[in-house]
Amino acid sequence: MLIDKISMEEQVAIFMSGTRFADETEDFGENSDESSLRTQMREELKNILQKGRPLRIYLGVDPTSSNLHVGHFVPLQKLRKFQKLGHQVIFLIGDYTATLGDPSGQTAERKRFSHEQTLEFAKTYTKQAFKILDSEITEIRYNSEWLKKLTFADIIELASIFPMKQIITRRDFKQRMDRGESLRFHEALYSLMQGYDAYALKCDIQVGAYDQHFNLLAGRAIQAFYGETPHVMITNPILIGTDGRKMSKSYGNTINIFDEPFDMYGKTMRISDDYIEDYLILTSSFDSKEISELIDKVRKGENPMDVKKKLALDLVRTYHGEKAACEAEEKFRQVVQKKEAPEEVPEINIPEGVSYNNWIELCFNTGLVKSKGEIRRLITQGGFYIDNEQVKDVNIEVVIPEGGLIIRLGKRKYYKII
Amino acid sequence: MLIDKISMEEQVAIFMSGTRFADETEDFGENSDESSLRTQMREELKNILQKGRPLRIYLGVDPTSSNLHVGHFVPLQKLRKFQKLGHQVIFLIGDYTATLGDPSGQTAERKRFSHEQTLEFAKTYTKQAFKILDSEITEIRYNSEWLKKLTFADIIELASIFPMKQIITRRDFKQRMDRGESLRFHEALYSLMQGYDAYALKCDIQVGAYDQHFNLLAGRAIQAFYGETPHVMITNPILIGTDGRKMSKSYGNTINIFDEPFDMYGKTMRISDDYIEDYLILTSSFDSKEISELIDKVRKGENPMDVKKKLALDLVRTYHGEKAACEAEEKFRQVVQKKEAPEEVPEINIPEGVSYNNWIELCFNTGLVKSKGEIRRLITQGGFYIDNEQVKDVNIEVVIPEGGLIIRLGKRKYYKII
Repeated sequence: MLIDKISMEEQVAIFMSGTRFADETEDFGENSDESSLRTQMREELKNILQKGRPLRIYLGVDPTSSNLHVGHFVPLQKLRKFQKLGHQVIFLIGDYTATLGDPSGQTAERKRFSHEQTLEFAKTYTKQAFKILDSEITEIRYNSEWLKKLTFADIIELASIFPMKQIITRRDFKQRMDRGESLRFHEALYSLMQGYDAYALKCDIQVGAYDQHFNLLAGRAIQAFYGETPHVMITNPILIGTDGRKMSKSYGNTINIFDEPFDMYGKTMRISDDYIEDYLILTSSFDSKEISELIDKVRKGENPMDVKKKLALDLVRTYHGEKAACEAEEKFRQVVQKKEAPEEVPEINIPEGVSYNNWIELCFNTGLVKSKGEIRRLITQGGFYIDNEQVKDVNIEVVIPEGGLIIRLGKRKYYKII
Repeated sequence: MLIDKISMEEQVAIFMSGTRFADETEDFGENSDESSLRTQMREELKNILQKGRPLRIYLGVDPTSSNLHVGHFVPLQKLRKFQKLGHQVIFLIGDYTATLGDPSGQTAERKRFSHEQTLEFAKTYTKQAFKILDSEITEIRYNSEWLKKLTFADIIELASIFPMKQIITRRDFKQRMDRGESLRFHEALYSLMQGYDAYALKCDIQVGAYDQHFNLLAGRAIQAFYGETPHVMITNPILIGTDGRKMSKSYGNTINIFDEPFDMYGKTMRISDDYIEDYLILTSSFDSKEISELIDKVRKGENPMDVKKKLALDLVRTYHGEKAACEAEEKFRQVVQKKEAPEEVPEINIPEGVSYNNWIELCFNTGLVKSKGEIRRLITQGGFYIDNEQVKDVNIEVVIPEGGLIIRLGKRKYYKII
């Protein structure tokens, strides 16, 4: 097992990379600003890793939709890293919790689903999760297994662990009440359910998005109440939409798991340059070293399109397989890249009757370069493209087809020649 | 059945007498100041009485103590009035709720009991309740019957009925939180349990102390949620201790159900004069007419002791039977009244060597009356007592025993003659 071949420090680095912790201040009296919580979790992680046995790590998902996007799968990437090292991963289907719906981070009361609907959604989740996790070595559980057995008396015991004040001062609840928005009593019971999951699963670590902070803390409180070691929380940031806005179906800024390969590839290519790093860290299957290298490239000014292509290929490979990924890449190259570039680039209209002997003349006479020497050097050094194909021959004939063509000067200057 | 022989208006008067309603302002958006709530309940009561069938009325008690006092039994007196008219009374043992403990009106978190302890306490309650209710026609229920069957999902459905804001703005909870005192999450679940009792029992009316207001309203909300007519709330004031302070074992101002007959009689006699009316209304088995007459007597300046004696006899009769009541009265007369009076009355010391031929001389010479004629008339008209025995003979010899004796002039003037 890899777990024996990799140092504790390296494991800690892997598990802590790309994490984001909450900075709520009143919950359970823990050290809860971002950096002290991070420090605390790192220490706790070291302590359990020192036991030298495979750890039990779980992610709980409430199947409340069949329309999944890569944001939902961020913690799965983290789980996969644990799994690769030989730790035991548990994928928990919140079939019971989903019928209530997690109010965490919600601005309004959630729609509730029947158990049947939930189980349908669960099938979708599980099938997709195994695009990332290894189904052979993943333990799948359903929280109805224990939650449906709890009595009113049990729930009262769980509730007795929590001061009322902590329940009502959690940020999302407080904001809704302060704004006079609906917040109903049952929403406060959600954390008890999720917290009990943590206790029932007897896990060392729970992963999840950082807006799950309160639910994860509830798990720690319940574990402590029953005399167990509270699990380590490994939480990730919330993935932002491809256009930099909050992910939303209505914005069309999500990369959905069920998107066709070519569509998924294209959406990835449209990720706003500012968010490439986030997507690399949170959605790709690359290891830390590969991610660092790609981020470096972007920071050093390489064309972000090249990095996005690598990410797009990786995502389609993860969700649709190698063949589909290659086909999507090829199709994108042929169709989209040719088509889309013109829409974004300035047009240079060559008047009828005017012709040029070569591309040096054209570029100089239309003012695209300051001197013939400049364009000559660009061509000979490999920085000149016609319809995305490198042209190194300075004497190549100028043939402009109907509909025009795209030339590229250097890394990023595109012009449409008509 | 009496129910057919008594007018609706008369029934309403009986049921509404001695009631006290809460005046909370934010719960459930009901008309909740005292007088409008009273008006509303009176109207609802009329509506259901008009159905002309025996009504179902219940009282729920959480057996959390074996040390019961007459304050606990105030709503039972109301139930008995319903029962006498032919309505169906249900005595609900909160064997499930008692394990949690009602936080209503509490200033701190309550001690919790095991189900076994609770069932022990329940035996005590039931036995004593049947001193007031007719066991032959009373339905006894235990709320574990339905509460133990509720699942987490059921509880979530119940909780979804209530806005969070209503839970946390109820006065007793708010006060505890504002004072920074402990209030734990489970305490908020209590109302759901009690509210579900109301729904499960399918009753027309619930009786209880007015500090149960929130729990009774929860019942109404749950009934309405499930499409039923909310029950009418008939609530009573909280009985004050015999000395005018809050009832408390440590103050020794409670009349306990398990007090020996003579002790119970004596404690009743020690009720502060200002609270005789409350005790008559809330603890006696007298009907409205009898209560009115006794209250009139007190208000018109008759000796409150005489009214208290009637109440004491009634209470001991209720809890210990006729024979014990008569014995207690006689013993009190012999022992306590003789003994206690001296402590409260002025002493007249007859110097050694001085003697009087008769009581007229003694009273006149010691200045207790203004003229010999006044005391002569008092004696002949039956207004003169020696050690509580009427003396009509003006010539009776003055014999003062060691330790003295008590004379009474008219209704209330006592003197100890030594």
